[in-house]
This record gives sequence, structure tokens and C-alpha cells, in this order.
Amino acid sequence: MFKPTKPLSGFIELLPYQQKYFDECSNRMKKVLDSSGFSHIDLPSIERAEVLTDKDNWDEIETQMFLFQKADTKMGLRYDGTVGLSRYVAGHINDLVFPSRFYQFAKNYRGERPQHGRYREFYQLDVDILGIENLSENYDLEIILTLIESYRSIEDLIGSVKVKIGNRKFWDAFFKYLNIDDKYIRELLIIIDKKDKLKDYKNDIKDLIGEEKAFKINQVFTEGYKHFLNKDNNLDKAIFYLNNLLDKLLQLNIKNAEIDLSIVRGHAYYTGVVFEFFSDNFPELGAIGGGGRYENLVSKFSKTKIIGVGAAVGFSRLIVGLIDSNKIDLSNFKNITDIALLIMDDNCLSYGFEILSLLKKLNFSVIPYLETDKKIKNKMEFADKINAKFSVIIGSDELKNKTVSLKNMKTGKQFTLSKDSLFDFNKLEKYI
Amino acid sequence: MFKPTKPLSGFIELLPYQQKYFDECSNRMKKVLDSSGFSHIDLPSIERAEVLTDKDNWDEIETQMFLFQKADTKMGLRYDGTVGLSRYVAGHINDLVFPSRFYQFAKNYRGERPQHGRYREFYQLDVDILGIENLSENYDLEIILTLIESYRSIEDLIGSVKVKIGNRKFWDAFFKYLNIDDKYIRELLIIIDKKDKLKDYKNDIKDLIGEEKAFKINQVFTEGYKHFLNKDNNLDKAIFYLNNLLDKLLQLNIKNAEIDLSIVRGHAYYTGVVFEFFSDNFPELGAIGGGGRYENLVSKFSKTKIIGVGAAVGFSRLIVGLIDSNKIDLSNFKNITDIALLIMDDNCLSYGFEILSLLKKLNFSVIPYLETDKKIKNKMEFADKINAKFSVIIGSDELKNKTVSLKNMKTGKQFTLSKDSLFDFNKLEKYI
Repeated sequence: MFKPTKPLSGFIELLPYQQKYFDECSNRMKKVLDSSGFSHIDLPSIERAEVLTDKDNWDEIETQMFLFQKADTKMGLRYDGTVGLSRYVAGHINDLVFPSRFYQFAKNYRGERPQHGRYREFYQLDVDILGIENLSENYDLEIILTLIESYRSIEDLIGSVKVKIGNRKFWDAFFKYLNIDDKYIRELLIIIDKKDKLKDYKNDIKDLIGEEKAFKINQVFTEGYKHFLNKDNNLDKAIFYLNNLLDKLLQLNIKNAEIDLSIVRGHAYYTGVVFEFFSDNFPELGAIGGGGRYENLVSKFSKTKIIGVGAAVGFSRLIVGLIDSNKIDLSNFKNITDIALLIMDDNCLSYGFEILSLLKKLNFSVIPYLETDKKIKNKMEFADKINAKFSVIIGSDELKNKTVSLKNMKTGKQFTLSKDSLFDFNKLEKYI
Repeated sequence: MFKPTKPLSGFIELLPYQQKYFDECSNRMKKVLDSSGFSHIDLPSIERAEVLTDKDNWDEIETQMFLFQKADTKMGLRYDGTVGLSRYVAGHINDLVFPSRFYQFAKNYRGERPQHGRYREFYQLDVDILGIENLSENYDLEIILTLIESYRSIEDLIGSVKVKIGNRKFWDAFFKYLNIDDKYIRELLIIIDKKDKLKDYKNDIKDLIGEEKAFKINQVFTEGYKHFLNKDNNLDKAIFYLNNLLDKLLQLNIKNAEIDLSIVRGHAYYTGVVFEFFSDNFPELGAIGGGGRYENLVSKFSKTKIIGVGAAVGFSRLIVGLIDSNKIDLSNFKNITDIALLIMDDNCLSYGFEILSLLKKLNFSVIPYLETDKKIKNKMEFADKINAKFSVIIGSDELKNKTVSLKNMKTGKQFTLSKDSLFDFNKLEKYI
């Protein structure tokens, strides 16, 4: 008889106090990016289908995306921040100064069947630095530092985070050094990426390229990548790059960074550094962010060569994962009201709003209760239910005498203050 | 050959400095709502088709909405904040304390063909107070005051705003008083709502209900609504309500409010006060926000009776309209970088990031330029292009002596500071 009240499965809906936690985290991270010279851009959620995909086979991609048609135009909901950014940058090359820094904090969509911890609508924080023709590898360091600083800004809310850093160039050089045919590379990288999740990744690699080469690949993890120094010039370069990056991070007192060559990231477009962030206390969340260096991202939109290094934080996955874990204390987000302003009768309304405005100017969080016809008991109940620390009561006496009556909701103590003395309200608790 | 770089028509895409203006406005308005005890909620953009509409005729609504099907589920993109809020409140009645305050700042979607000033994707700020079974009319005043305060928080960015207030109950009583058949009411309200846009609204009304009654309706606007005092009890009540509301606003020193009974709002669900906000300097934008009181909003989701009063600000329409007018000075959003941090060679990188971190702690907006291989000329060009007020130059001398070299980009004056003296950086301008 009634329409359903639950959101569609795979869609997130938070209670107000959970949303407050979510917003506090996102606002702090955005603030770090703002103050680091990254420009916020907010791109359309809907793009032409041809922008979203190169495939002509709609049936196949429709299972993964939200696609639809209006009039003659096929379009769909964006699934990441990269496609839109590429289009945007290609369209605005002359309006921008390069290297150009961007961040997006936006909803993205996946049409796939919902699974645990995967959402069909989710916020992602995308952070990118883009250069024309070239972009110094120094910006790799900047992106990683900026992400570390962003996570640190919410460390008290989500716990500490570490970063694991790999290098696609290492594997490029290593596969060449081992004389591995190009046709195996994509599959090899996917196996290495999923190494810890696979039952027997060594066997999977052996099946692909034979025992001898598989053994050497495994040595990267058992002996360490430094084992392969002085064997190949490009390999040395890739190793030197990583050592240098880690040195620089250590010089800047960043201790929660390590080299891990099993980090290769899923996307084919990465060409250099790749990195992933993990929660120290919640390893079960998997990578809570990651990124890397890519080349020629906008080639489908423009002949200008754009090089970039970027990162994405799976924000909904992280924050909703933490909320669902029940291991985060959200009580600070539940009880946030300082004062319930209780207005006793309609004649006091204007005076009540005057007091409300005054209290807000003093930075109190105040919620007014304006059901003047209700009994005093109902009014006090409201103050209780919203967990207000104080009630401020405004009745005809208060109006007449230009005072307010104040009640400490914990102790029950009550007393009267002149309106003018409200400016000393900050000292209140000691009076009661 | 290349894919299109423009967004789909009807979709908004701003340049970084325009986005900064947009964000500054939205952040300030949201801050007012946060500090007024309104809870932010962020609902899914996609809802079941049956939640979005009561109609079974898909073909008809498909022209106005973005609808699609995944597996067996028909769904679509939300077109306003009200439908989702109704579903949310019905689903969470036991988790909420009533009266409950909410705001949403979210993208909404219209599938209609794009027209000038109408977007297919747009931000709307929705503000609502909801009560169970009843909700004092005092909350009408609170909503209007809260919206006025929100607009005022951005008055320096958008100009001043006035509010025009009407009352559906006036027309209910007036139509009864004139003995007008219920079947004409919806159409009459639509004509009154569009009164100033229609060529000859008087004639339109006359055609509908005859000359005599049309004359009386017109008298509301020519003689003023007070002309109809003491004729009908319900009419008196509706007039008294409006007078009282305006009195209260005046007592609170709100002078930019007026009664205008031609304000009736399009939606059928309003039952009491209705109001619209207009820009004083940009009347061509039309109503830039509005709302009113509604009853039994969640009746399709729950048997609990929910009464509400709410408002919506057509945020994209307002802000993009102002940007497009070219009458708003956005230079403050263009030149926001205090310092370009120019790093001369890779050996100085860690020291450079140390200085960067220091300057950010001092609340400077700093953008680093890390293309160490480029010539000094290119580095200075970058500082010029981003309109930095100062360049801070970090080279091997600076590293060795723990200093920074500083250049005022306007005067060209240059000097050297010790790293420690950076803490006095705020006094800098007087030294140069």
C-alpha cells in the first residue's frame, strides 16, 4: 500500500549524526587541498556515452554503467573522476595555467550488481596535477605528501594511514630484462596486483611465463627489489627513483611510507609511480585510496599531450566502512546541541528570536522549540531528546524583565540571567 | 576525430575561479544552516521510479525525467529534494526527534529540453522543518528568518534580497467567500501565480469564473487584501496571520519583506504560507528561492502525518545566472595566490617542502613550482601567470644558509630572509 522507504540497494543513506561525521571528514580533507593550491572543480554527473566509453557494444557496458538515451543522445552517469577531468582540461587548455592542480569531490556511479562494501553511488575524492608535454617527477612527491596531509587532517576521526609505493617502470624494465613477451604484461600486472588475494599467485605466473621467469618475479618479493640492482640500466633507474622518493619522504619526517612493488593498480594507464593508502587499524577495508602517474590522458580529446599524477580516495567506502564497523566513536557527532531555546508563548516570539540570534553570534549551537501551545513538560522533553546541555526558557517574565531563565539539563539547576549578561555565557558552566 | 570537449547542453561546467565563487556562496549558506540546528542529509540521486512518480505512463514522464532500468528495477534521477526527504523521514521516523530540521544541498535533474537559464543538472538548497501531526506556525517565521540570514551571509557576493509572502489559506477562504467551484481552483492559482507574466490575467480569470468574481479577485491587488477584512471569518484569520508575520519580521528589524498575495507557488501541495525571494539588483533572475507550508507530505510512504514548512534555493540558477550576467566582480576569486614557491634544483626539494609546509601553517596560499630543470625565466613566468603576490625562491644558497629569497612580483624588489624570520612574514609588505 505504501511506497518503499528504503533506498535502492547499493545506495548510501546516513542518519544526521553519521552524515555529520562524513561531512567533518570530507570538509577537513577539502580544506587541506584548498590550502595547497588545488582548484575545486565540479563536473557534470552525466556525460555523453561516447565520452564515457570507447566501446560500441552497449549491451556489455550497460551491465556496469548507468546509461540512457534522451532524444537522439546516448548518455550515462560518470563512473570516475578521470574521464570528466580529461574532457574538461582538453576543453579549457587556454584558460588554465600548467602545471594545474585540481580536486573533485563528487558522486560516481557503478551499475553493477551491489556487493558488500561496493556501492552503486559513492563519493570519490580525486586529486590531480597536470602538465603540458611534461611534468617533473617532483610532483609525484607533492601528490603523495598532499594525500598524507589530507589523511592526517582526519587522523583523530579515522585512525592513522600508511602509504605503499610501487613503480610501473620497475616492472616495465623487469619484464624486458626477463625477455617476457608484451602480450603477457597486462595479465602479469593483474596477478601481481592481486598477489595477496590469490590462492597461489606463483603458480598463476608460472602457468603464464614458465618456471624460470616466475621464480625471478617471486624473488622481487622474497629477496627484495634491491637484489636486482646493477643488472640493467632501466631497472637501476626505477629502483633509484623509488629509493630517492622514500629518502625525500623520510627527510620530511614521513615514516608511514614503504616501497611495495606488488602495488601496481588496476588501471592500464599508469606509467610511473603507483601508490595505495591503507588504514593501520582497519586493514580489512583494503586500499582506502591510491593513484599514480599517467601519460597522455586527454589524447582522445585533444592533440595536446597532458601528463599527470593523481590520486583518488574512495571516500564513501572509507567513511561508510568505518561507520559500519561500529568501532568508531560517533558520540561527539550525536550530542552537539548546546542549548534548547524553549519559548513559552507567542508574545515572546520576537524576543525569543532576538535571544536566538544573540546565542548564535556567541557560537552556541541552539535549537529553538516553538510549539508554544504545548505544556512545559513537552518542551522540556524536547530539550532532553536532543541532548541539549542547557535549556534557555523565554516566557512573559523574561520578556518583561529582559532576562532569560536557564536550566542545566544534567544537574537540573536553574537560574535567571539578564539579557546583557549573556555575553558572559561562555563562563556559564562555572556558575551552575 | 577527437571526442567532444563540451559538456552536454543544459549541463554546467565552471572555470576554477567561477567554481570558487560558487563554493564560497554555498559554503556560507550551509554554515548558517549548520549553526541554526539544521541537519545536513545527503540522499541518493537515484530513486525507484515508483518513488519519483505516481504515474504509470512512462512515456509521458520520460520527457521530463531521466529514467532507466537496471535488471528488473525501473529507476530515475531525482528532480527535487522533497520526494527523497519524504521517503527518508518516513523510513527513519523512530531515529529522529521532531520537530526535525534538515537541509540538503544536492544536484537535481530535469530531462526536459534545455532552455535559457534552465539546466538539466542543477544544485538546489532544500531547507525543511518537519513535525509529526502538527507544526506550529511559528516555524513559518523560523524558516523565513533562516533563509533571510542565509542570503544575507552572501549579500556582499550576490547583492541584497527581498522576500514576498503570500498565504494559500487566504485564497482558500477567498474562493469559498466568492462561492467558486473547487474545480476552478487549481487553474485560478496557476493564473494568479503567473499574473505578471501573462498578457491579460484579468481576462483569463474572467473567462474562467465570470466578470463579477474576476473583478473581486482583481480587487485583492488593486485595493489591497485589507479591503476584505471583516467580511469572512476565515479570510480574517488568513489576513491576521499575514499581518502578524510581517509585524514579527519588523520587530526583528527585517525590512526587506512584504505581503504579496500573487505569490502562490506552483506546487499543489502547499497549504498555508508561501513565499519567494528576489534579488534587488537582478530582478531578471525571477524568484531565486521560495517555499511554504505543506501537509501530509509523506502520506505515500507512511500513515504517520508529517507537517512541514520548507524552502528551496535554486542555487545553480542563481549563481550561474550572476556569473553569466558579467555584473559580478570575480577578481577576488581569480587572484588568490599569495606565494609562488619556486624550487631551483632537486637538492633543495626537501627544504622547499619544509618551507611550503611552514608557509601553509602561516595561512598563506602557496603554489609550488617543481619543474627544477626549467630556466629561472620559466619559473618566474609561472609565478606571473598565477598572479602570485610574492615569489619565494629556494636554491642551493638558501638551502645552505637556511634562508629564503623573496621577490615582490609587483615592485620586483627582492631580498633574503632567514627561515626563522618567516614567522614574521605577515609583516612582510611593510619591509618591501
